[in-house]
Amino acid sequence: MKALLLVAHGSRRAASNEEVRNLTGQLSGLDHEYDRVDCAFLELAEPSIPDGLRCAIASGADEIVVLPYFLSAGRHVTADIPAEVDTVRQEHPEVVIRVAPYLGDSTSIPGLLLEQASRKTG
Amino acid sequence: MKALLLVAHGSRRAASNEEVRNLTGQLSGLDHEYDRVDCAFLELAEPSIPDGLRCAIASGADEIVVLPYFLSAGRHVTADIPAEVDTVRQEHPEVVIRVAPYLGDSTSIPGLLLEQASRKTG
Repeated sequence: MKALLLVAHGSRRAASNEEVRNLTGQLSGLDHEYDRVDCAFLELAEPSIPDGLRCAIASGADEIVVLPYFLSAGRHVTADIPAEVDTVRQEHPEVVIRVAPYLGDSTSIPGLLLEQASRKTG
Repeated sequence: MKALLLVAHGSRRAASNEEVRNLTGQLSGLDHEYDRVDCAFLELAEPSIPDGLRCAIASGADEIVVLPYFLSAGRHVTADIPAEVDTVRQEHPEVVIRVAPYLGDSTSIPGLLLEQASRKTG
């Protein structure tokens, strides 16, 4: 069973965390290869990354892709997220957990930004 | 003359600001309606948003789209960026400055995340 875990920073502002949960719901509804899609937060919101991974594993996931919802390759992306993932890798060596490239690294970002720039709002 | 100003938060980590400058360079190279594409930062890096706008205006821009490179609609997006933009609107009432929806508000994000999830790295 394959799972996708969207990992965001987490915010003191509840509405920002809710944006991530809504996005996760949208992802779940799309056509893809994952049996479940969940979100987790590095800090300031629940579930934590280890808890998000454990929950997917408890529900039967044996392959999990962790997707960092971050725009830049700072310490959170290069060190903190991998460290949290490693904790669960050690607990569950039988589960394959892969960390995907962070959002900002996508080559589709420039085109998407031009699309946003032409949207009328604000 | 039409200009696009990509506005990022700004980071103490120089490489993160450099990522934004590189992205701005990529945007410049694409086919679009803007005569110039620049970036500016809300804090921690230069140029500031007002300075970025003033620079575009000094080079002849009379229509500027400000594009918030942010994932959530927090205070920075809803209050701080509009306030910085207003400063320059008052200085240059003849220039049309429009704030586009922030990146995280794009309906293309879910598809892009699935694309990232299937990329092999890390």
